[in-house]
Amino acid sequence: MNRKVTKYKRIGVFTSGGDAPGMNAAIRAVVRTGINYGAEMYGIMRGYDGMIKGDIKKLISKDVSGIIQRGGTILQSARSEDFKTVEGRKQAFESLEKFKIEALIAIGGDGTFTGAKIFTEEFGVPIIGIPGTIDNDLYGSDTTIGYDTAMNTVMESVDKLKDTAGSHNRLFFVEVMGRDAGFIALNTGIATGAEDILIPETTTNIEDLVISLKENKRKGKTSAIIIVAEGDDLGGAYEVAQKVKALDSSYSTRVSVLGHIQRGGSPSVADRVLASRLGFEAVEALYLGYSGVMAGMVNGRVGYTPFEKSIKHHNDIDKDLLRMARFLSI
Amino acid sequence: MNRKVTKYKRIGVFTSGGDAPGMNAAIRAVVRTGINYGAEMYGIMRGYDGMIKGDIKKLISKDVSGIIQRGGTILQSARSEDFKTVEGRKQAFESLEKFKIEALIAIGGDGTFTGAKIFTEEFGVPIIGIPGTIDNDLYGSDTTIGYDTAMNTVMESVDKLKDTAGSHNRLFFVEVMGRDAGFIALNTGIATGAEDILIPETTTNIEDLVISLKENKRKGKTSAIIIVAEGDDLGGAYEVAQKVKALDSSYSTRVSVLGHIQRGGSPSVADRVLASRLGFEAVEALYLGYSGVMAGMVNGRVGYTPFEKSIKHHNDIDKDLLRMARFLSI
Amino acid sequence: MNRKVTKYKRIGVFTSGGDAPGMNAAIRAVVRTGINYGAEMYGIMRGYDGMIKGDIKKLISKDVSGIIQRGGTILQSARSEDFKTVEGRKQAFESLEKFKIEALIAIGGDGTFTGAKIFTEEFGVPIIGIPGTIDNDLYGSDTTIGYDTAMNTVMESVDKLKDTAGSHNRLFFVEVMGRDAGFIALNTGIATGAEDILIPETTTNIEDLVISLKENKRKGKTSAIIIVAEGDDLGGAYEVAQKVKALDSSYSTRVSVLGHIQRGGSPSVADRVLASRLGFEAVEALYLGYSGVMAGMVNGRVGYTPFEKSIKHHNDIDKDLLRMARFLSI
Amino acid sequence: MNRKVTKYKRIGVFTSGGDAPGMNAAIRAVVRTGINYGAEMYGIMRGYDGMIKGDIKKLISKDVSGIIQRGGTILQSARSEDFKTVEGRKQAFESLEKFKIEALIAIGGDGTFTGAKIFTEEFGVPIIGIPGTIDNDLYGSDTTIGYDTAMNTVMESVDKLKDTAGSHNRLFFVEVMGRDAGFIALNTGIATGAEDILIPETTTNIEDLVISLKENKRKGKTSAIIIVAEGDDLGGAYEVAQKVKALDSSYSTRVSVLGHIQRGGSPSVADRVLASRLGFEAVEALYLGYSGVMAGMVNGRVGYTPFEKSIKHHNDIDKDLLRMARFLSI
Repeated sequence: MNRKVTKYKRIGVFTSGGDAPGMNAAIRAVVRTGINYGAEMYGIMRGYDGMIKGDIKKLISKDVSGIIQRGGTILQSARSEDFKTVEGRKQAFESLEKFKIEALIAIGGDGTFTGAKIFTEEFGVPIIGIPGTIDNDLYGSDTTIGYDTAMNTVMESVDKLKDTAGSHNRLFFVEVMGRDAGFIALNTGIATGAEDILIPETTTNIEDLVISLKENKRKGKTSAIIIVAEGDDLGGAYEVAQKVKALDSSYSTRVSVLGHIQRGGSPSVADRVLASRLGFEAVEALYLGYSGVMAGMVNGRVGYTPFEKSIKHHNDIDKDLLRMARFLSI
Repeated sequence: MNRKVTKYKRIGVFTSGGDAPGMNAAIRAVVRTGINYGAEMYGIMRGYDGMIKGDIKKLISKDVSGIIQRGGTILQSARSEDFKTVEGRKQAFESLEKFKIEALIAIGGDGTFTGAKIFTEEFGVPIIGIPGTIDNDLYGSDTTIGYDTAMNTVMESVDKLKDTAGSHNRLFFVEVMGRDAGFIALNTGIATGAEDILIPETTTNIEDLVISLKENKRKGKTSAIIIVAEGDDLGGAYEVAQKVKALDSSYSTRVSVLGHIQRGGSPSVADRVLASRLGFEAVEALYLGYSGVMAGMVNGRVGYTPFEKSIKHHNDIDKDLLRMARFLSI
Repeated sequence: MNRKVTKYKRIGVFTSGGDAPGMNAAIRAVVRTGINYGAEMYGIMRGYDGMIKGDIKKLISKDVSGIIQRGGTILQSARSEDFKTVEGRKQAFESLEKFKIEALIAIGGDGTFTGAKIFTEEFGVPIIGIPGTIDNDLYGSDTTIGYDTAMNTVMESVDKLKDTAGSHNRLFFVEVMGRDAGFIALNTGIATGAEDILIPETTTNIEDLVISLKENKRKGKTSAIIIVAEGDDLGGAYEVAQKVKALDSSYSTRVSVLGHIQRGGSPSVADRVLASRLGFEAVEALYLGYSGVMAGMVNGRVGYTPFEKSIKHHNDIDKDLLRMARFLSI
Repeated sequence: MNRKVTKYKRIGVFTSGGDAPGMNAAIRAVVRTGINYGAEMYGIMRGYDGMIKGDIKKLISKDVSGIIQRGGTILQSARSEDFKTVEGRKQAFESLEKFKIEALIAIGGDGTFTGAKIFTEEFGVPIIGIPGTIDNDLYGSDTTIGYDTAMNTVMESVDKLKDTAGSHNRLFFVEVMGRDAGFIALNTGIATGAEDILIPETTTNIEDLVISLKENKRKGKTSAIIIVAEGDDLGGAYEVAQKVKALDSSYSTRVSVLGHIQRGGSPSVADRVLASRLGFEAVEALYLGYSGVMAGMVNGRVGYTPFEKSIKHHNDIDKDLLRMARFLSI
């Protein structure tokens, strides 16, 4: 987190990694705050890929008008293999030089900041990160942009599945996003009154699950929803359903993989406000001379975390909530 | 369609087959209209299964209060193998006799009315059908209860997928319900501006699809949505995606199977009004002495269609709309 | 409805009157169908006002990309006093000549087509109308673009009000749009199980309303929703609430005027499909030599109605539904 | 905050004051946690009113099944004048004695806890409070139950108004809830990109507002949204609109009072999780011997705040955010 106060004239902004609702709100805030500071703002298309290829365009205030409510990202996003090579990063740096871009705002997750860390070290370009990922798996911000919207999308889908599960006495296994982190699964499981929640952070015991389902049945509960994070140690929803079937074939089971709808949709209030604040704060941080850090909200206040720390660590999941969820769904 | 005007004292109502949003609104209308006619109303649980087992309960006006806006069906639904046997149907008839139920309202689809037709012929119990299925595949009603809501659920999901498809230059194959009928696929395809729509009613030519995708690419369109009805002749979305991949591997493809969320959710205005009207008209039809017919809305007016006709025929899909959809999505 | 088959090279499209969800879907369909016919397409801003001022711009296929799901109208809308004068219309015609626009597609309601009728008579410019208004008050189309979405917006709001009405034993008067027509009020009233529905097409008797509320109370129903069309003969929701209070002050009443949210929002499947079809058919009609007519959907098929007929007449409301609504909400 | 560890056998729960989405989720959590502790749980209808009248019923686990997703409160809510008298509170205490209820969970806001504080002091009944109010105006919890949902309801409505505002070049004044606190107005204003936000916590200068609107117009921004908290020092949206009109009559202004829809609707993930956790923690707190405190979430952890403190103080609004909102909406 080195500081050297500068008056940047041209700042670039890009989105990278999986897209998340609220990224557009962050782009809007970055562009307008930069303009307010007197900078010219540039949008870099498709993350590091567009940076390498020089796919860069000037953004004025009007270009980000009417985007705060839209899902996706107007700058598009991609993963770039080339940026993992020195040669690729050199080309990216040359693009920035060509456009006279002096500093960057990177909106994305783990992979984005890993690239940003190397790039700023190699070429000295100041970079501030903004956590934009639905997975909420970054250290240094209580929540990440897109997380709240994704959870509400999951919840609305599970509410719909509950209608049909209850009408048919069915056992539903619902797979939600979360390769390494169970945040979405845990919270949507609580919010939908799911009968069980399987997450990567805990060891899933299939026998226990079957026993608790039997117990439910005994009490007269004939339908159930099991939320499965895609990264659960037993596998995704299909694998878990098969394992349950193998132990007890009496269930009419159904599997629903919610998939990419979780990445889309108009962002929620929480995500729009978070994105607006972090977009604003990220540019302010640049002008205060920060670099190599991610801007985040920690306990209601903005905080800055070095890229290496935000990448390596995750927010911890509160495992007591699993226990609570289980007996609230009795 | 035999008529013998009777004053029924006890009428039963049940839902059967796949559940559909608006079934509760229909139950509410049936119960309250029946009460208005002076009848006692009985809810039969889980369709023919509950009829066989005598799982039947009296419904008063308050029991159907606050359900008009809820998805699923408070009477639950199931498929019954036993009802396909004479013995099963005999048991069902005995249950009705036990509860002194003189006439029935059956809410469901193809299978429901097939059973109802046999049952009314065998035992003389008057039955009026109400079309409750998201698939819209019944002759005798312009639309079926649940169809409009299901389409809006699909559309909202595809709108979300478009956010992420557009952010990543991806080719999305979205599977929607419709084993025999492409109504949902066709209309949601038009409504979301899908690049192509594959339905059971037409032969899908994979080479043509790949050619039109290439043409899109050439024009600078880098993302696309293909809507696939589950009953397409080439298979579901996974099969189609693989076939496209086999012909042209340059795409970053994704598959999304929307699945059971299409059956749930709070019903739309159109479905609630349709369900209320048909529930009302079905009971009126009983008292007018009708039996063995399905009540439907045809060109804005109620019409009655014999079960055998409503089952054997389907509404035709307007294939010109496919052509229109294709060039509106240029 | 005079026909002279022509090959138009330049066609203008505009939206006029109150905006309605689905107008953008209609613009998209018009533009892309016209391009498909080999025409150059022009967007006229703010209806007749932009036509007079020459605020006109060329639209290519990409300009209407990504708008099918958006509320409002990218061409904006306005009412124009100047267009009611001969001088104003002459200026409008000169604008069209300047841009070499040979024919027009007008998306709007009553006022729009009244202007279009005079304009096409005076200057011979062929015009096809598309019914875009949430009020559904045009003869010649079973439904108008925006109507279905507006009703769903009302329904979702009333569902929310019911939560709070039921929690507090309150009597809610909800005012919905409909200056001359009770379509929105009637259908949303049925869909939300409203205790009463007051519309312009019937005489509202305040004593009867109070009596039926008392009857509800007697039965133990302590909260109620009354839907009031803004054009009811007794006035809007505030006036009706006061009159009820004057007769019986025992209620805890609340008034909610839903207002302009009814005009916005992402269009429903029904509205997007309707708008796409009519946009397509309107351009086809131009090339078939039609003029001075509104394209509409009548019983599932496209039909054309002369402007004078579509303006003077309205679709009739089915008053039997009022009676049905009342006893379904017992 | 006196503690005396006890093993309660019967616990009552009630909701009081304005209803808020998530109250049902809190009731569910309270009931099931209490049952888990071996207590019998009792629901007291309509807050203090039902307590006085002895309108109390036993709640088993199934009674709170399927309510987590529903707005409103199954226990209903009311304000009670009688409870403000010693006599009324004595009657309430006698009701509790009659039902052998030994402790209470009170879900509500300011007024609820004011009553609870007096009652627990007078009669020694242990009470834990849960913050259930959309206004977010309680000290001791970062957010209150219902607040997040209410904000999303406001946002969705304003998104719709923006469609129509932008289509017509209009100036919209939107009144949102918040008699004493501007939390809803501030955050929804940021989330919708409102041109200005008027809240009780700051002095509104009408001249400044008109100047900034003129400045917007000069830049070519022809439509605008102004969010007005109902408790703004200049009055509600109607008053503010008139004052703007008096200074500059060139605007086509519209007023929208969102009203009671803000209290309803299915709760968001955030509200359901918050309600579930606080319901759980409140009962745990009772068994740990706490009384006279409100359970809240502070920086991600549960915390307990004495009633007098939670009532007298409010969370502070971050006025820097107003400044940020203004220049992000340039």
